[in-house]
Amino acid sequence: MAHRGRLNVLHNVFGKPLGAICAEIVDDRSSFLVGDVRYHLGARAVVDVDVERGAKQVALTLVPNPSHLEMVNAVVSGVVRAKQFKRDSQTEGASARAHVLPLLLHGDASFCGLGQNGEVMQLQDLPDYTTGGTVHVVVNNQIGFTTVPRRARSSPHPSDVAKAYGAPIIHVNGDDPDAVVSAMRLAADYRAEFQSDVVVNYVCYRRFGHNELDDPSITLPLMSRRIEATPRVAENYANACVAEGILSKDELDDLRRGMEKEFAAEGATHQDFIRTTESWLASTRAVSTGVSGREARVTAAGTGMPIDALQKICHSITTPPEDTDFMLHPHVKAMFEARRRAMEPDVQVGAGQIDWATAEALAFASLLMHPCEKRWENHVPCGQDCVRGTFNQRHAAVYCNRTSHEHVPLDNMNMGPQDKFTAANSPLSEHAVLGFEYGFASEMGKEALVLWEAQFGDFANNAQVIIDQYICSGEERWGQRSDIVLLLPHGYEGQGPDHSTARPEPSVMAQANFVMVQPSTPAQYFHALRRQISSPHSKPLVVLTPKTLLHHKHCASKLMDFAPKSSFRRVIADGDAGDDVTRHENIPLKPNGEIKRVILCTGKIYYSLARQRAAKKIDDVAIIRLEQLFPFPHDALARRLQRYPNAHLVWAQEEPKNMGYWSFVAPRIATTERATRVRASVDEENRRVRFVGRPPSAAPATGSLAIHNAENARLIAQALNARDDDDAIA
Amino acid sequence: MAHRGRLNVLHNVFGKPLGAICAEIVDDRSSFLVGDVRYHLGARAVVDVDVERGAKQVALTLVPNPSHLEMVNAVVSGVVRAKQFKRDSQTEGASARAHVLPLLLHGDASFCGLGQNGEVMQLQDLPDYTTGGTVHVVVNNQIGFTTVPRRARSSPHPSDVAKAYGAPIIHVNGDDPDAVVSAMRLAADYRAEFQSDVVVNYVCYRRFGHNELDDPSITLPLMSRRIEATPRVAENYANACVAEGILSKDELDDLRRGMEKEFAAEGATHQDFIRTTESWLASTRAVSTGVSGREARVTAAGTGMPIDALQKICHSITTPPEDTDFMLHPHVKAMFEARRRAMEPDVQVGAGQIDWATAEALAFASLLMHPCEKRWENHVPCGQDCVRGTFNQRHAAVYCNRTSHEHVPLDNMNMGPQDKFTAANSPLSEHAVLGFEYGFASEMGKEALVLWEAQFGDFANNAQVIIDQYICSGEERWGQRSDIVLLLPHGYEGQGPDHSTARPEPSVMAQANFVMVQPSTPAQYFHALRRQISSPHSKPLVVLTPKTLLHHKHCASKLMDFAPKSSFRRVIADGDAGDDVTRHENIPLKPNGEIKRVILCTGKIYYSLARQRAAKKIDDVAIIRLEQLFPFPHDALARRLQRYPNAHLVWAQEEPKNMGYWSFVAPRIATTERATRVRASVDEENRRVRFVGRPPSAAPATGSLAIHNAENARLIAQALNARDDDDAIA
Repeated sequence: MAHRGRLNVLHNVFGKPLGAICAEIVDDRSSFLVGDVRYHLGARAVVDVDVERGAKQVALTLVPNPSHLEMVNAVVSGVVRAKQFKRDSQTEGASARAHVLPLLLHGDASFCGLGQNGEVMQLQDLPDYTTGGTVHVVVNNQIGFTTVPRRARSSPHPSDVAKAYGAPIIHVNGDDPDAVVSAMRLAADYRAEFQSDVVVNYVCYRRFGHNELDDPSITLPLMSRRIEATPRVAENYANACVAEGILSKDELDDLRRGMEKEFAAEGATHQDFIRTTESWLASTRAVSTGVSGREARVTAAGTGMPIDALQKICHSITTPPEDTDFMLHPHVKAMFEARRRAMEPDVQVGAGQIDWATAEALAFASLLMHPCEKRWENHVPCGQDCVRGTFNQRHAAVYCNRTSHEHVPLDNMNMGPQDKFTAANSPLSEHAVLGFEYGFASEMGKEALVLWEAQFGDFANNAQVIIDQYICSGEERWGQRSDIVLLLPHGYEGQGPDHSTARPEPSVMAQANFVMVQPSTPAQYFHALRRQISSPHSKPLVVLTPKTLLHHKHCASKLMDFAPKSSFRRVIADGDAGDDVTRHENIPLKPNGEIKRVILCTGKIYYSLARQRAAKKIDDVAIIRLEQLFPFPHDALARRLQRYPNAHLVWAQEEPKNMGYWSFVAPRIATTERATRVRASVDEENRRVRFVGRPPSAAPATGSLAIHNAENARLIAQALNARDDDDAIA
Repeated sequence: MAHRGRLNVLHNVFGKPLGAICAEIVDDRSSFLVGDVRYHLGARAVVDVDVERGAKQVALTLVPNPSHLEMVNAVVSGVVRAKQFKRDSQTEGASARAHVLPLLLHGDASFCGLGQNGEVMQLQDLPDYTTGGTVHVVVNNQIGFTTVPRRARSSPHPSDVAKAYGAPIIHVNGDDPDAVVSAMRLAADYRAEFQSDVVVNYVCYRRFGHNELDDPSITLPLMSRRIEATPRVAENYANACVAEGILSKDELDDLRRGMEKEFAAEGATHQDFIRTTESWLASTRAVSTGVSGREARVTAAGTGMPIDALQKICHSITTPPEDTDFMLHPHVKAMFEARRRAMEPDVQVGAGQIDWATAEALAFASLLMHPCEKRWENHVPCGQDCVRGTFNQRHAAVYCNRTSHEHVPLDNMNMGPQDKFTAANSPLSEHAVLGFEYGFASEMGKEALVLWEAQFGDFANNAQVIIDQYICSGEERWGQRSDIVLLLPHGYEGQGPDHSTARPEPSVMAQANFVMVQPSTPAQYFHALRRQISSPHSKPLVVLTPKTLLHHKHCASKLMDFAPKSSFRRVIADGDAGDDVTRHENIPLKPNGEIKRVILCTGKIYYSLARQRAAKKIDDVAIIRLEQLFPFPHDALARRLQRYPNAHLVWAQEEPKNMGYWSFVAPRIATTERATRVRASVDEENRRVRFVGRPPSAAPATGSLAIHNAENARLIAQALNARDDDDAIA
């Protein structure tokens, strides 16, 4: 809801004491975290309503919002969907739709100005996104700060946006309170009857300025004077009540005096109200105990599984339904057979063959069978084309080649009781869908693994507001935590400026309140997903995921990489126990003391470096992969660097120098270096990390495959051989 | 337009030779810049149409687009508006609306999925944004990659979005080419008659996959088979022509053979086609001669003006229309009188009094009277509430306090011929409006100073796609340059996590293809705006603008700061000639050799530092302001650093350590240091820049004013006094 009227709603609807509100206005120190201005914070209450017809209790939640007010719409939809799901997980919340109602209060200028409103309304009837309809109230005060309707929209009413989605629009005169009540009743009845969106265009005016310092008479002198001369709605209504004999003049005066007394009394005693964090929280989830993003430390507890359990799972999820004539598409059949075959003990002798999609499915399946008490755990990978997978890799649903019937293996494992699994192709939207999933995830907590997958990572910048304002800063601002997972395909593969990059720079710069990993193997991805649920912390997880590596024969893991006691490794270096990739490209390296260069990197480039190192028989260059970027694994990296007392360091990335990770990792590697005593003997020059990558560029990548390939060859050679790289950052 | 069908359009509509297309497919090396994949690039052509009724020539422009296809919509609107303006600048293009037609081809899934489509349509009837209507074609192939309509939208048709804006929607069967032609004629006639948007929902199907590697039969086996069995539209149409006797079987065969021959011939000779940059360009503007962002060097040519001219301008633009009873609002009257008074010679003896808004108006006015040959220069500050100004500072239009009549002083200077001045309150949209202004600016070039102002800087992240994909990378990708100016209010003033920051981090990280400044004085802002037009380069300009400084008595300039020979100073340090702020807070400093600490900073924090330094009588600390952040002023900074051979360096910022400029400036200051020979005598420890600012945080700022003030006091004291600050970056 909007800033204006919020205190009113807090007191008169949520029942927050006036004294508590006064206390907050007088002393604006937040009692927790970094906090936010008070008109952005959330609230919750349980109130009695409809007392005449037998009191009922209604639980209310006010979801916190950033200054971009309308950005909360998608989040509210997700929160409501989660509440409905929790109420009735057996039917996925369908029967609970009637019991949990989303209500959105919009401003007129923002409702018609911002496209996100329509984007969110487009979700209303989609099976995986519906909440059974939202009641929208457009508080139409006929002005947007200083902007008049003629400059704000091309349609007659701000509410006309809803026409695109078939929602009825009720126009009501805000000066007539009885009419407003009728309009709201009608809207609620419509929503209950038709389970779809309905809009109330509440036509009113703004008596004062946009904020305390604003003087509307500067730009609208005539209208301001007219509004000033207009009696207030409360006055009109009171007079009408007296005129109609509903209230006597004395009773009215008593009411007024009573209110004034209450105001005075509560204002006088506002010091008695002790502010607590809880009073701001929208959710009943426990308050985060002061853990802010920068202090987040993720446990590396074992996330491995018994081998036989994994084999059973794989068999189950690659087998079509037995009791029907379900015929797999030949392509899918071959893929599923390869997945099964990769899990068999005899193929495990040589290189691993378990690919990315299989590892992901194993992670999902293992969490679905997680023996927790509450059984509403819900795994939701969603995003554009995520059911099959943008890169034809996931096949979370399969379709009978004869009948088109859908079968979702992970939701039908036949291995005993399991939780609900959903994979949802989303509309072609980033903002609304990510906002929804964030809201859903923040309400579900550890009870669901909610993943949003961008079609390509660069599309995430169309949901930048959700990332900045909610996923990154929501916990520090509002204590609103989430475990949402963002899967962002990233990697330079000659696909042009857009589809090469997930633009990790803003994320690594913000470097706070989430965990960011770029796993280089399927098993690492498996562990990262399982760790997300087993970790005691609630932190969003950003995974930079691969594209060509999804089908790359060397990007494969062995069963033992998933075995008990295995876990997510934040750093992987040559010679690590369980080193699971260099076995493909193995070349005997010289003893550690004779290693002349250490290449640090993250992601896909590792495979190019390892292959070229083997092909050129380079035996004095070691490679260290940063699998986790944030929180930066100083300790794990220091342990690896200590092995190489005589090597100089190179950071190698595919991205241009002004993008990717260089600005982020360079000072952090330097900090780690200072902490590595063994390397104190390395001379000053060699302790400085050198850069190898593409030169600075305004566009993330070239559009030419030929140029891309030439650039790649050059930078791989440079990373492995050159000693005199340009190392000035600017 | 979409990727699919683009080669078809290039050949059959734009007349691009098939051989040229083949040449590009075979050799994908871009001939210029970083380039883009070929189905994103632009094109232009002049073609003959309507030959039967006397040939007419039509100029066609295909605007390049990023992978986020629909993001081009706003840009196209701006390009068209500029073309209309150029055709007929006297009436602001109103009569040219009929002659320049925007045509947008949408995909069904993206048209209904992305809110930006509605956001752009909302502009259609707004005086400052209309293009006289757009013809929209929704290429409705009933699938979005792998996502079926039931999962993609809640409305029956993807075109229903247009219902919100009253646009008629023509549904047409794509299998019936004659019906399609009729539908398009009807759409064009409607647009010509009613000057507003119209939509054609072109219902068709997708025969093949989303791309070359896609096999739609995996997820839609039945539909795929049915499509495969459906005769192609060309075949149907040909057969119908034969059946109706319009064409004989032989004639048809001849046509087919002719086409096949043409294909074969052009394919065989594709080597003869030499690729040129021009073939990709959408605009007739000259190609950028290989200047990429990282090489941009902005000239610091004098942008000062004769004092008397400035005084005359100020007098003119602060005087209400003489021939009417125009009555200024008392607040505005006082403000205008103060502006005039500030320009008078006698007040110029002491501190300057020319404030930010006056300096801005002087810059606009001076450019409007710029004696260039073409007289269509158009200054367009636009954005939410930019006419008055979010902070009640601009008053680009004033309103008669008695009649509400509007008067725009800068458009009515009465000082001889002048160019058109427009200030436009935009709808409450960031994406659509910034996209529009980018398109407008890229078409206008140096013929207009186009400024987009965010209400607060943080709102810009709702237009992140436009910033990333167009403003930052458009030149390297498509040779599409622009001189657009982004005004982003930025500064920590206790307004909470959102309104404190313009999130400069992503911009300074991208550090390419634009100029980024944070002027600390009104005169500096004046020069930055004038330089934007006088510079020979076309580069977007990002200005981090102030909020409280707009009305801060020390943030003021003197007439001499605007005088001839003055210009934009990329760096300002104590003791610089014309030092225009320390005169307010002046304290005699020790000789340069005895300065113990140099504080580097940018923006508002300077005023806090200078005041505290004076209050505490600290005379061994010098302050250097970076007024330009990118391109980083290594040379200018080096000259200042050389003055202080015995000082250690501190970077002071208001922002948390993981935000603001620290990651960007730290390595660059180090590089500058290495180049400063005089400071070679400074010991290693003191050469390292230390950090003073807020600790890392996930949220940009606290929501508590009390905490904010305490933090500020601490960091100012630390910057001036502390010697043992934490200087590890991570």
